[in-house]
Parts: sequence; structure tokens; C-alpha cells
Amino acid sequence: MVQADRLWKRLQELGDIGRDASGGVTRFSYSCDEWAAKERVRYWMQQAGLDTWEDAVGNLFGRREGTDAAAPAVWLGSHLDSVAHGGNFDGPLGVLAAIEVVQSMTEASVQTRHPIEVVVFEDEEGARFGFGMIGSRAVAGRLAPAELDRHRDAQGRSLGWAMQAYGMDPAQIDRAVRSSSEVFAYLELHIEQGRVLESQGLPIGIVSGIAGPLWLNFTFKGMSGHAGATPMTLRQDALAAAAEAMLVMEQVAQDVPGCVATVGKLTVQPGGVNIIPGVVSLTLDLRNAIESLRNQAEQRILEQVEKACLRRNVDVTVQTLQRIAPVECAPSLRGVLHQSCEELGVSGFDLVSGAGHDGMQLVDLCPVGMVFVPSREGISHQPEEWTSPVDCIMGTQVLYQAALHLAKEGIVQ
Amino acid sequence: MVQADRLWKRLQELGDIGRDASGGVTRFSYSCDEWAAKERVRYWMQQAGLDTWEDAVGNLFGRREGTDAAAPAVWLGSHLDSVAHGGNFDGPLGVLAAIEVVQSMTEASVQTRHPIEVVVFEDEEGARFGFGMIGSRAVAGRLAPAELDRHRDAQGRSLGWAMQAYGMDPAQIDRAVRSSSEVFAYLELHIEQGRVLESQGLPIGIVSGIAGPLWLNFTFKGMSGHAGATPMTLRQDALAAAAEAMLVMEQVAQDVPGCVATVGKLTVQPGGVNIIPGVVSLTLDLRNAIESLRNQAEQRILEQVEKACLRRNVDVTVQTLQRIAPVECAPSLRGVLHQSCEELGVSGFDLVSGAGHDGMQLVDLCPVGMVFVPSREGISHQPEEWTSPVDCIMGTQVLYQAALHLAKEGIVQ
Repeated sequence: MVQADRLWKRLQELGDIGRDASGGVTRFSYSCDEWAAKERVRYWMQQAGLDTWEDAVGNLFGRREGTDAAAPAVWLGSHLDSVAHGGNFDGPLGVLAAIEVVQSMTEASVQTRHPIEVVVFEDEEGARFGFGMIGSRAVAGRLAPAELDRHRDAQGRSLGWAMQAYGMDPAQIDRAVRSSSEVFAYLELHIEQGRVLESQGLPIGIVSGIAGPLWLNFTFKGMSGHAGATPMTLRQDALAAAAEAMLVMEQVAQDVPGCVATVGKLTVQPGGVNIIPGVVSLTLDLRNAIESLRNQAEQRILEQVEKACLRRNVDVTVQTLQRIAPVECAPSLRGVLHQSCEELGVSGFDLVSGAGHDGMQLVDLCPVGMVFVPSREGISHQPEEWTSPVDCIMGTQVLYQAALHLAKEGIVQ
Repeated sequence: MVQADRLWKRLQELGDIGRDASGGVTRFSYSCDEWAAKERVRYWMQQAGLDTWEDAVGNLFGRREGTDAAAPAVWLGSHLDSVAHGGNFDGPLGVLAAIEVVQSMTEASVQTRHPIEVVVFEDEEGARFGFGMIGSRAVAGRLAPAELDRHRDAQGRSLGWAMQAYGMDPAQIDRAVRSSSEVFAYLELHIEQGRVLESQGLPIGIVSGIAGPLWLNFTFKGMSGHAGATPMTLRQDALAAAAEAMLVMEQVAQDVPGCVATVGKLTVQPGGVNIIPGVVSLTLDLRNAIESLRNQAEQRILEQVEKACLRRNVDVTVQTLQRIAPVECAPSLRGVLHQSCEELGVSGFDLVSGAGHDGMQLVDLCPVGMVFVPSREGISHQPEEWTSPVDCIMGTQVLYQAALHLAKEGIVQ
């Protein structure tokens, strides 16, 4: 059905765009590298016979018509942006698998009632602006104009500025909004980014729900001072307060079922060996597939961190970078995916996605389903990110089978 | 005796060299800014009638002859280099006070038996190479040639490279070595950089000993991973390990009498909001005026940090950046300083210096004494570093009085 070599070759070719000397891939949103990746993908879409267009925020679409032009489209997709110095599977696999599915259908002269649209969402990772899923928010009508000025990259440039530099009109983002009558379902193939499938020797995961990421920024303000001349009792050490806060975060995540908490970024000012830190800033990424448990963990963390800072005479302020509700995948689509696995003679393993995905933004627009394939050693967001060709193809075949059911027959079972 | 206005005006003028837009002063060793500061000071030395020269590592000397040309010289001095974005008193006050002392002596036609040399030591802070007291090490014969290649700045340039670019021959550093027969005593006026004098309303501190700084670099290597897809139980989080280590360091310093421990620099890799940190590097500055207590604190920290890392399956390596033994100030010079204070009608308060100073390197060369003046709010190594004109002058008068006793009469009491 699907062509393994073509998919794998395109995946390798795409990985050369934005690759640095040490093998990492960096494709930030609205960058030249992300643009180049989209143009390469657009070319492959056209080779697959798709009509292509970019919407008002930079989402790239490729459409294959069905026999009923008025029927809502089945969406298959993912993203092409990456984290800094990341891997080559997170995003690209889902995009190229979707193209492979529709190209294979056309080569097999398969006709479907529903049109199929391959979607490349703009900025899923949030690596540039600390604010992700921008394209999927936009199509779901969830991207408020105020966000465009609020989020800024490391150079201090706003999301709106970046859009404009990319040739878009930030005043027109509403044009990207799509309606439920246009979209029948959204299916995405993605790497697991964890060790569950690999550790159990399973080829396919069927996602039951996606844990919502809550991103908080903590700023600790103490008092800088000379490392030698300030007795321990007179200190207001911002980094010591941050250290205590990090252990609180870790402990709470260990205590609350299904929770994960990560401090991934931390900066120290002034940053001299012999200077007590005056200001420390850090990010917390807190997730749980169940929103009430995530809220409970958040509350516990805030209370304990504030208490510790009060004791230390260090000021702490907390800013919400993003707060995404966990979502459940559509039971109907999970059913189609399980059926597709059975037809292919593989078992589909139910699991929760700890990572966030564009589908989270689409739940009010259409039913959302996701297929996972194993990540070697669970590694992701690094150059070592890897999924074997066999696993990539198996996932693509499941995607093909499920898309065929949906586009030909509608929701089955 | 000494001229308050002249001293204060020179201090302000010197502070403009290396000053940035926000008021901080940055004068790294062997930089153009430090060179410009030394040239300005050399001009003032010449105005004060001193013979000036620079030695083989960049120490600047200004000599006032005594009646006995063969007598060893009384050294008065400090340094002109600064930390990044630092203040304008740490170093410059001691240099300018020394010039003020000899210029005032000459203006008052005072003759002394001993010559007096004003010394500007090269790179006391260690801000550029993470290795300080370079000039004082050199005169004491403690600067091993191997150090020149070992220590590198943020651009990866070695200390030897910087010397060469500054116009010096790294093969000739031995020429800077001075002998005990040449140096009678070393006295330095410095700001306290702590809150002891201010909090007790005292104008003058007489230093009993200098706590030796031990600088260690800790590198934690865990395993990077996706923040959402890696359960807490499967993590090898380098930053969580570092957080636990930082609280260990703080606790040990609180437990061991007279200890201070500071983590001033910390870097996180890869450094994304949703990526578990794989590598964290941090510096520890550990001090105690009593070496055995510092060693005890170091051992406790290393044991507890290693235990924590073993439990976390995180690898930790520790590198010694510098290990300076604490030193006692010469009782003879402390006596001269106390007597000088009495003659001026002020009380001299005995205190330990938590900060390291060039005098530490000179203890085998000559007796070492230090005078402290109050730091406002104990702030140092920041643009807000401040000592009032009245306190600067009072310290300079004590230095004058003590230098007069030493240069005229030798060690008194």
C-alpha cells in the first residue's frame, strides 16, 4: 500500500533543513528554515496531486477531493517546527505519513466520499515564543489577537511582529478559523516521545487522552551580595529559594497520581561565581491527563513555594505562560484505529499522551484521534530522537487504513 | 592631612572607565578598560612624584624613596580590575587612598626611612578567567607557568594568550617575583563588602584574618527527555539533582561555624521549557576563616551530593577551580592599625574578611594588614556598591597614620 522507501527518503531529506553541525534540527516558527521545510513539503503535496494553500497564520494545507465536494474533510497532519537542537521525527513523521497516505490512495485509484486535507500546523512546539500550538489554536478560533503582542521570542520580538515579517497580516488571523461543518475528523501520527511502547515491545499506541501542559514562569527576587562577606543568616539568596522550590515541584509531582513536573529553563542574575544570586527565573511544565489533579498539584506547589519564599525573605511572582486543558480522544476514532490495527494484524495499545499536541486545540472543531509509534529509549527533542523505518511504516499503514475507513465510510463501528 | 576632595574626585573619574549605560563598571584583566584605568592611575602616581613601572605580569608600581635606599619598602595597594557589571569602590579605593597617602606625605615634607611603594595588582577578582589574585600570586612566586594555559575566559582564550595580547611575555613571569628583603609590610584599605560595620555604626574595621575561597565546579549529567512523556519514576533529571545539591550546600554552611556557601552560576542544557535537563553545571564558592572547618564542610557536601546523585542515577563530577588557604593578618600590623585608630580618636573593630584579597598571596613575602570601611547595605560587586566620602577619608587617614608609623619607625608597639 504505502511506499516505505519514499516516506523514509523524504523524512531524511526534510531533516537536512535546519540541521546544525552536531546533528540537531532547529526550525523555529516563522523562520527561514521552517519556511524552507514547508516549501519542500508543499512540493511533495503537489507531486501527490494535492491542491495546496497557506492560511492566514501560516498553516499549510494540501487537499485531495472526494466524490462529495460538500462533505466535510478528513484532516491528517502534524507540524514542521522543532525545539532548539531537536530531532527529526517529532512533527515531520506525521506530515509525511499523511502525504504518503493520500499519494498511495491516488496511486491505487482509491476514491473516497470525503475530501482529505493534509494539514501542517504552524508552531506546535512553542519553542520560539514560549507559546505553542499557534496554528491549531487559530483554525479552532482560539488565538486571541492579544496573544500576538503578549508573547515574545529571545530577541524580544512579538509573535505579531514575526507573522508580519513572514508576510502575513496579524489583523487577519480570523480568516484562518474553520467551522465544524468543514472538518469531519482529525487524525495524527506521532512518535510517542516516551518509553512505554518500547519497554513493552509494542509497535502501535492508540491515544486515549492528552495531558494538558501548564507552563508557569517563576521569578525569585532576593538580594545580591558578596559570597564571602555575607553570613548565611543575612542572605536572601534567590537561587537557594529556587532550589527549594524545584524540590517542592518534584515532590508534588511524585505525590499526585499521573503528574509530571519539569523545570527546563533557569537563569541566574548577576551570575558570578562569588556573587549571591539576586534574581532567578525558571519555568515549570506541569501535566496531568486529568485536569482536577493538575489543578491540585498546581495549588500545592504554589502554596509550598510561597511559604518557603516567605521564610527566606525572597519575593516570588508567578506568571502563566500557557494553560491547556487535558483532552480525551474521540471514542469513535479510537474505535476506527483499533479496527484498523486488527485488520493489519497488529495490536493497538491504549495509552495517555504526556506530550501536548495540536489535536488538543481541535476538540471543539471535530473528533480527534492519535496514533503513536515507539521512540528509541523514549528520547525526544534531541538529535538522538529516533523511530525505526519499520515502526514509521507500520504507523503510516494504520493511518492509511483509518483514513480510508473515515473518508469512505464515515465513522464506522 | 589627606585631601578629601582630591581622593573623591579621582574615585569618580576612575569610575567612568569601563562604565556601562546602567551604571555598572566592568574592567576585566588585560582589557582595554583596565589598561586605561592603570594609565590614569599611573598619571596620578607621577603627579604625586612617584617613580612608576609595570612588572612582568602587569602589576603597576609607584615608588617614593625613603632616606635609606636599602631599606625594604612599605607596600600600600589594591587592584583596578572588577567583576562584570560591578561597583567603583572594590579595589580603586585602596589604590587611590595609597596614592593620597604618599602624595600627602610629600606635600607635608614628611621624610621616612623606608621607601613606600603603591601597588596596583593585576586581576584580583578572577572575573575573566575564573582564577584571581594573578598579580599578587606572581610577586609571591606562586604563579605556576601551567596556570597560564589552564585558565580560559568566556571566549576560550587562555591567561597566557591574554598576557601576550597585552604586550607581555608569558615566559618571563618569574621576573615579577619579589623577595622578602625588598618588602617590609603590605597594607590595604578596602571596602568591607558586608554589613557588619554598617549594622554596628562603626567607621573602621581591622581585619584579623581572611577566609580562603574554595571554588568548585559541579557538573551533573542525567538524561534529557520529553517533559510530558517521561514519568517521574523514569527520570534522571540533572537540574533536580542540582537543586538537591544546592540545598545540601546551604545546609552544611549553616551547620559548620563561620562557613558561607554560594552557588553563583548555573547553566542548564538543553534549556527548553518542555525538556528534562540533561546536563547542569554550577559553581560553589565555599569559605571559612579556619581551613579545617572549610575542609570539613567540603567533605560533608561532597559526600551528601554524591549520595543524592547515586540515588537519582545522575552522574556528578567536581572540578577545583581554585583553593586558597585562609590566612591570618600579622598581629604586628593589627597593632599598628589599632594604635593609628586611637591616635585619630576612632575605634578600630576587629573582624574577619569573608572576601578574599591579594594579601592572602603575600603572607610568605611580608606581614599583611587590612583596613575595612563600611559598605552601604553590605552591597558589593554591583553598581549600587557605595561607601560614603566621610568613610573613605577616615579609612585613608588610618592608612596614612599606619604607613607613617611603619615607614618612619618600622613595626611599633
